[in-house]
Amino acid sequence: MSEFFNVLPPDEARALLLRHISHRLARETCATSEALGWVTGSAVMSPQALPAFRRSTMDGYAVRAQDTFGASANLPAFLTVVGEVAMGRPATVTLRTGEAAIVHTGGMIPDSADAVVPVEQTQAVGEMDVFPHEIEVLKAAAVGEHVLQVGEDVYPGAEILPAGHTLRPQDLGGLLALGIMEVQVMSRPRVALLATGDEVIHPAQSPTPGQIRDINSYTTAGQTRQAGGEPVLCGIVGDDYEALRIAAAAALATNDMLVMSAGSSVSVRDMTVQVINSLGQPGVLLHGVATRPGKPTIVGVVEGKPVLGLPGNPVSAMIQFDMFGVPAIEQLLGVKQGVRRGRVLAQLSQNIASESGREDYIPARLQETTRGLQAIPVFGKSNLIYTLVNADGLIKVPLNKAGLEAGEWVEVRLF
Amino acid sequence: MSEFFNVLPPDEARALLLRHISHRLARETCATSEALGWVTGSAVMSPQALPAFRRSTMDGYAVRAQDTFGASANLPAFLTVVGEVAMGRPATVTLRTGEAAIVHTGGMIPDSADAVVPVEQTQAVGEMDVFPHEIEVLKAAAVGEHVLQVGEDVYPGAEILPAGHTLRPQDLGGLLALGIMEVQVMSRPRVALLATGDEVIHPAQSPTPGQIRDINSYTTAGQTRQAGGEPVLCGIVGDDYEALRIAAAAALATNDMLVMSAGSSVSVRDMTVQVINSLGQPGVLLHGVATRPGKPTIVGVVEGKPVLGLPGNPVSAMIQFDMFGVPAIEQLLGVKQGVRRGRVLAQLSQNIASESGREDYIPARLQETTRGLQAIPVFGKSNLIYTLVNADGLIKVPLNKAGLEAGEWVEVRLF
Repeated sequence: MSEFFNVLPPDEARALLLRHISHRLARETCATSEALGWVTGSAVMSPQALPAFRRSTMDGYAVRAQDTFGASANLPAFLTVVGEVAMGRPATVTLRTGEAAIVHTGGMIPDSADAVVPVEQTQAVGEMDVFPHEIEVLKAAAVGEHVLQVGEDVYPGAEILPAGHTLRPQDLGGLLALGIMEVQVMSRPRVALLATGDEVIHPAQSPTPGQIRDINSYTTAGQTRQAGGEPVLCGIVGDDYEALRIAAAAALATNDMLVMSAGSSVSVRDMTVQVINSLGQPGVLLHGVATRPGKPTIVGVVEGKPVLGLPGNPVSAMIQFDMFGVPAIEQLLGVKQGVRRGRVLAQLSQNIASESGREDYIPARLQETTRGLQAIPVFGKSNLIYTLVNADGLIKVPLNKAGLEAGEWVEVRLF
Repeated sequence: MSEFFNVLPPDEARALLLRHISHRLARETCATSEALGWVTGSAVMSPQALPAFRRSTMDGYAVRAQDTFGASANLPAFLTVVGEVAMGRPATVTLRTGEAAIVHTGGMIPDSADAVVPVEQTQAVGEMDVFPHEIEVLKAAAVGEHVLQVGEDVYPGAEILPAGHTLRPQDLGGLLALGIMEVQVMSRPRVALLATGDEVIHPAQSPTPGQIRDINSYTTAGQTRQAGGEPVLCGIVGDDYEALRIAAAAALATNDMLVMSAGSSVSVRDMTVQVINSLGQPGVLLHGVATRPGKPTIVGVVEGKPVLGLPGNPVSAMIQFDMFGVPAIEQLLGVKQGVRRGRVLAQLSQNIASESGREDYIPARLQETTRGLQAIPVFGKSNLIYTLVNADGLIKVPLNKAGLEAGEWVEVRLF
């Protein structure tokens, strides 16, 4: 516990956590067409050039550019159209001086041609349906004009995707364009979610007075899925040191990360710290982060695996998981940090008070007005899950600011 | 074809499309814990109050506030602690004048108490482990202080989620907190994706000169999934009117929406228009949108179902599907339009030219610099899928602007 801190600023706390994560995930092979949202396990190189042949970007005529030099509407160049390149077929026609061939958008350019004249820049001379026939070219073509060159999109051997890249629709398209039907991806990190508390019951049960239904297992599971992890619900354990230690050890042994409820009362939090420290080295790294809500968050690492103790109340738990759990999952996956999460600028509808030296997160609802987007704070104790249900995102009040003023433009991080 | 337009501005084009969609999706029941990303099929009302009993937000003592009036560090109030409310248990203890009970954060407040004094604001007087024992209260408590009231989060009968709401982690938590184990959701709209073109082959095949692999079916499938739809790949059809008509009719009959490639050449686009008009009323609504890339997009509706003909090149296809396909899916799902897609402000790294009267979309890479976030345009013909692979989002040049200047702050819509 050489690096045990009491309360750290969020950025330092997160850096401390990420520095200690050394656990390695397995990799697996995934069909490219099913790989949306998975993270590449290694860099991907192109096996070929794309396009693999020269293609026209217009409907028109493949020509030798020099045959059109000086052509204009007043002084057209006359070319003899000797054939047509059919879509999906090789361009077998050979152009000699003064000859052209019909090409369609996306069609192959004959080897002997070096430019395409769009059909709009030509004029027919008599019969069009037979070959050969004559056309007038009304504008000179430059070499390479309206031609996609071989390898213009990707050249062979190029790194097309780095390792640690979350696959988007265009990435799947880019891979399949090259015939890459399978891709190596990181296995999804299994995140064990262990609820604790004598008062907590399964949501399907009917609470008696004093009991509440488990919420945090499900909100955290949703956040885990969104971050690319696989939630593993490990049930509910009462406030009993030995029961919690056994459940936590089992959950950590078979999964890549452990998230426990650190409860709401001081005694339960102290017990959670003891349990995490009993699991292995280095154990708890810090106990407390300078944020509201969420100060009493416990951040630890055991044998390279992240272990978090989240506050019991649901709003703090969600915000703290976003602050530590999501980056931990991304670190396990090898995803580059600093992903550009959706943010919008909006005008604050009312003053927000805050203490300097602490980052505050305030849920806010967004509303389009005639003067632009407005951010309306959703106030409420952080025990109230519906403050988040009724919000579109979070406003952050930075560490060094004592509040925000009505009318100020603020950044809202979208959920 | 009373409403056939040639080229419309994007916003008008989209409004025209959405106005004609009248097809209704089925609804289904989904386990709440598995409902992440699904869309509510009806409004959800709360069956009960949340919290269902008064809860403490602090570790401390449940008291009758009047017994602490005037208390201060100099003149503490003396209270007799007569018991403890265990977590998860009903608060059975009854407080008489001058009495208090130990409560933990989240624990139930006895009926006879109306406030909680945090443990930090008290001082022990002698023995603590036995009841009754004495404490000093160092600060007066107000009625209701540190107490969550019944229904403070949600009152019974309140509308907790509207219809057409995409379920997020906090929404699942909010539902389960109330014991709502199942939720009615909209069935995912089945979006038929039909690739066309004599030159297009399945990605697993090896192209011969003139052939290219199908990309658009897979990029569009990914976009469909992200929007909440279910992609149905309907294969590849050559440039043959009768074959295309039969395939399109079959695909539309068994699905909720049809997306065809409108090909790259004028003749294929004309054929796609004819096919869509042959399928039913009203058919093609417009043929051409004032955007680059993507002008030759075909937008139609057949018997209330959206039918799109996307440009053949992959960049245009993705941008146009984002512009028309995603809102069409949201309309089918009943999702409120104007969803706040992630956007960031960044400083443009170089000039961008554009024509007034047209919306331009330029792929851009984002880079953190010492002066803030920078947007670096990724130029390239819209045939090049890797312009999107190498980008983080799109810069929009509005209809009425002729270009953007280096150093300008621009909004980048994230992918």
